[in-house]
Amino acid sequence: MCRWIAYSGTPVLLSQVLFEPEHSLIDQSLHSRMGVETTNGDGFGVGWYTRDADTPAVLRDLGPAWNNRNLLEVTHHVRSGLFFAHIRASTGTAVQQTNCHPFVNGRWMWMHNGAISGFHRLRRDLALAVDPALYPDYPALYPDIEGSTDSELMFFLALTFGLPEDPPGAVARMAGLVEQAGHAHDVQHPLQMTIAVADGERIWVFRYSSEGRSRSLYFSTKVDALRALHPDAAFLRDISDETRLVVSEPLGALPGAWNEVPESSYGIIQRGEDMLHSFRPALPVDSARS
Amino acid sequence: MCRWIAYSGTPVLLSQVLFEPEHSLIDQSLHSRMGVETTNGDGFGVGWYTRDADTPAVLRDLGPAWNNRNLLEVTHHVRSGLFFAHIRASTGTAVQQTNCHPFVNGRWMWMHNGAISGFHRLRRDLALAVDPALYPDYPALYPDIEGSTDSELMFFLALTFGLPEDPPGAVARMAGLVEQAGHAHDVQHPLQMTIAVADGERIWVFRYSSEGRSRSLYFSTKVDALRALHPDAAFLRDISDETRLVVSEPLGALPGAWNEVPESSYGIIQRGEDMLHSFRPALPVDSARS
Amino acid sequence: MCRWIAYSGTPVLLSQVLFEPEHSLIDQSLHSRMGVETTNGDGFGVGWYTRDADTPAVLRDLGPAWNNRNLLEVTHHVRSGLFFAHIRASTGTAVQQTNCHPFVNGRWMWMHNGAISGFHRLRRDLALAVDPALYPDYPALYPDIEGSTDSELMFFLALTFGLPEDPPGAVARMAGLVEQAGHAHDVQHPLQMTIAVADGERIWVFRYSSEGRSRSLYFSTKVDALRALHPDAAFLRDISDETRLVVSEPLGALPGAWNEVPESSYGIIQRGEDMLHSFRPALPVDSARS
Amino acid sequence: MCRWIAYSGTPVLLSQVLFEPEHSLIDQSLHSRMGVETTNGDGFGVGWYTRDADTPAVLRDLGPAWNNRNLLEVTHHVRSGLFFAHIRASTGTAVQQTNCHPFVNGRWMWMHNGAISGFHRLRRDLALAVDPALYPDYPALYPDIEGSTDSELMFFLALTFGLPEDPPGAVARMAGLVEQAGHAHDVQHPLQMTIAVADGERIWVFRYSSEGRSRSLYFSTKVDALRALHPDAAFLRDISDETRLVVSEPLGALPGAWNEVPESSYGIIQRGEDMLHSFRPALPVDSARS
Repeated sequence: MCRWIAYSGTPVLLSQVLFEPEHSLIDQSLHSRMGVETTNGDGFGVGWYTRDADTPAVLRDLGPAWNNRNLLEVTHHVRSGLFFAHIRASTGTAVQQTNCHPFVNGRWMWMHNGAISGFHRLRRDLALAVDPALYPDYPALYPDIEGSTDSELMFFLALTFGLPEDPPGAVARMAGLVEQAGHAHDVQHPLQMTIAVADGERIWVFRYSSEGRSRSLYFSTKVDALRALHPDAAFLRDISDETRLVVSEPLGALPGAWNEVPESSYGIIQRGEDMLHSFRPALPVDSARS
Repeated sequence: MCRWIAYSGTPVLLSQVLFEPEHSLIDQSLHSRMGVETTNGDGFGVGWYTRDADTPAVLRDLGPAWNNRNLLEVTHHVRSGLFFAHIRASTGTAVQQTNCHPFVNGRWMWMHNGAISGFHRLRRDLALAVDPALYPDYPALYPDIEGSTDSELMFFLALTFGLPEDPPGAVARMAGLVEQAGHAHDVQHPLQMTIAVADGERIWVFRYSSEGRSRSLYFSTKVDALRALHPDAAFLRDISDETRLVVSEPLGALPGAWNEVPESSYGIIQRGEDMLHSFRPALPVDSARS
Repeated sequence: MCRWIAYSGTPVLLSQVLFEPEHSLIDQSLHSRMGVETTNGDGFGVGWYTRDADTPAVLRDLGPAWNNRNLLEVTHHVRSGLFFAHIRASTGTAVQQTNCHPFVNGRWMWMHNGAISGFHRLRRDLALAVDPALYPDYPALYPDIEGSTDSELMFFLALTFGLPEDPPGAVARMAGLVEQAGHAHDVQHPLQMTIAVADGERIWVFRYSSEGRSRSLYFSTKVDALRALHPDAAFLRDISDETRLVVSEPLGALPGAWNEVPESSYGIIQRGEDMLHSFRPALPVDSARS
Repeated sequence: MCRWIAYSGTPVLLSQVLFEPEHSLIDQSLHSRMGVETTNGDGFGVGWYTRDADTPAVLRDLGPAWNNRNLLEVTHHVRSGLFFAHIRASTGTAVQQTNCHPFVNGRWMWMHNGAISGFHRLRRDLALAVDPALYPDYPALYPDIEGSTDSELMFFLALTFGLPEDPPGAVARMAGLVEQAGHAHDVQHPLQMTIAVADGERIWVFRYSSEGRSRSLYFSTKVDALRALHPDAAFLRDISDETRLVVSEPLGALPGAWNEVPESSYGIIQRGEDMLHSFRPALPVDSARS
């Protein structure tokens, strides 16, 4: 469907991660090896956090990433220590900016690879579960849905279920609701997802599917361990021990650099020790912002 | 907000209506005289019926109409006897193809100028009223909402309330529901609309606003009467007596050519005598396709 | 680089040729089998002749053909008996409408697959050879160059060298000039081309490369012969004996349907017998319109 | 035709200059007061210098600036102490990214408001004067022309005539050549221009027209003088004494803030004292890079 990258660590020019690696995300837009489709040319997006703004910046467009000059220009001139990038292969929904990832709501940024099976039938039930209220201090939820993808709706559901307070719990409740709605409509395996979500400080990544055969997802080996393996790799000297990448498919063939995120699990990338836990959908009790 | 044209009559090249008149729709995209905004540059669309397809063709794009070469090319090479054209001035919703008019569902084509006041607050209630079912013989309704405009939602509500069987009744029920939802959310004047809708044979046009101060709308004088007034006007000789235009603002200053559609009324353009009736919102009893 | 189709024959909906075949041009935009690149997603164009206009209509856009809704809409509603379609894979020049094929000048329409080697170095010499004059009765040449491709320049050179009077001669002189300029700049194999050009009545197709290893090009078998081979193929009954397709790669696997255009040759598709001749570049003597 | 802004001074978020002022450039895109056209909706661009890249970043797109979300996002998250912004009203040339300003060549960035009269006739003569060579250490000139505007050609001519060594001299020679070519083709007033060009350290601005009736251009009053006039204006306290804006039309009505650049003159904005000199076209002797 899609491919994505999440980066956390030493501030770099975005292009160093998006364009320079041997099998970069831009290369994957034309020649994905592990995706359902080899071509991911139905729009793209990058989102990055900066020091002097509360919300991330997002550059999204509806053409392919591989020939977009604004993407080239901006990523060669902007540095960030926490950013997302996503290339899209539409499964039928419109190719438009508001269907491109990452999606943003306040400080929160979200991107997804996968699909809700039978989304055409489940869409209304899921939209109804999105928080309808207009809070004075928050961006709105239901009224601010702009696109037509399952991915954006999953984000708004996670926000409804308390993403800011408890990201793994909110994503578990979103997944539980999707499966519940799917089963109510006789969909056998309703959910297929790899998700990254960030608040500007931390990144949470999720790999899960109802079927137990999730889309590929990899995290990079700790930098100090990689340096010991590859003492001659110059670029490893320039990045901090805390630098971490999570990707739909490895960016190159450096031995020992990439590790599969296990089925039904989630990770937290943060200052200090990163974490890896098992993930299981949960039934939402009631909406969280109230 | 927007400007539109609906044409029914002798098949002509679309460009003869869209580009050639003195104050054409393309001129109005830069220099509207009667609109809320002088510039209508946030996307455009044309939709036309042909002999050998059941559904209308639609060309929509997100840039301005005045500089779009595909619009120029297609309208200079395509003939039709029933077509719509629309230029958009967004009031905040995304500039994207799925927010451009006309909207199409099966044989039906819809365009709108105006707005639902407080749409941000009413959107969920209105979306909930759209028919959720997936009929085997019809295009779907709720699941096929693609954009984020009030205009598209009004179309899907009218379809829900029986547009194919009773267009004026369905539009009245849509308008009644919008006003009911608006009043429930303390919106004083919820609805402002001029609408055109067609099925390939007839066009229905509506002018209404809760406030009683509706956006401008004009219909052209009957061709035989115009010929008597202007015996030297060559173009009047080439078009049939049945040819009729309905427009947001007159396309030129030909004396006697344009007549205001009265407040709170609707017209039917059809083979034989066209009709003009008063219009009043009605409360929807229940959805119509059932 | 690119893929293209030229159609002449019984007027059909463009979609019947562009979307319906098993390995249609739209499928080739994602999965080309014989091209240098498998993906042709850097813009597209269709051009078609109609009864009531002197010049062809062109619809071109800069995104991929596979997800373009205007292409889908227009080709499902427009009929023509002579049309071109082209999907582009840029080799570096900008992805913009004015670099999309087909190119048009008056009644003439042109499209190309291939490249001029070392174009960066030859571009100025070739541009200088384009007719600089502004004739009262012709569209201009040099002043009307709009894009930055070798393909458009080749078209303007062929126009300069007498395309309207002698298409094969003009293309031969264009090819001769390109090779001459290439050799002057130490380019070993300057030209690689498959070209289609039409005037609304006839189509000329060319296959040539300086190296003698030209890009693939196929023409369809005569319809009466195909009918004899496949008496059960329903679609063959609906099209005239004169119907002919020329394509970069076959649209399907129907045995006997496709024949390779020989190296260094050109064909003429016209009323009556089509023709196939050998092709050889020629040195331009001097410009032709004078 | 167009409107532009050049900024030099305290690094700010680009949005503070482009979106926040009362009559900002974004407002001018819809409601220009001093331009030939009130609407400037045929593309836009911003270009900015950063600390860690040798060349400026450029974000350009073909839709209107007023509804572009990427422009909104990027300018609200990027800081720079030297940047350009431009909104375009095409006079007929294609609306495409490569016709949007600013244009970049190495460290140099260029934007223009105005036109070459009779450009259709002069284009070839001017293109021929662009340096044809491919230098090992410079970006190429003639071969790298990408668009079809007079503005880009003027930039490449100025580069040909020694822009990096002597900006005022190179622009004078460019202007002299344009006038010479124009007079050779019986164009009475060939040149109309306001130009800004920068190298990352300094900005040069030019106001000139053959007719002596040049497009409007204003520079901001020195910050210390403005502070004395408006001791309560908070934003004046946050910017350095060296901060300077040059604009096609004033961004607001602050008394004493804006001064007309005199006819036939140019200014230099730089560390230390800014300069204002008279400007006169000069005949190019021969190309400068040699």
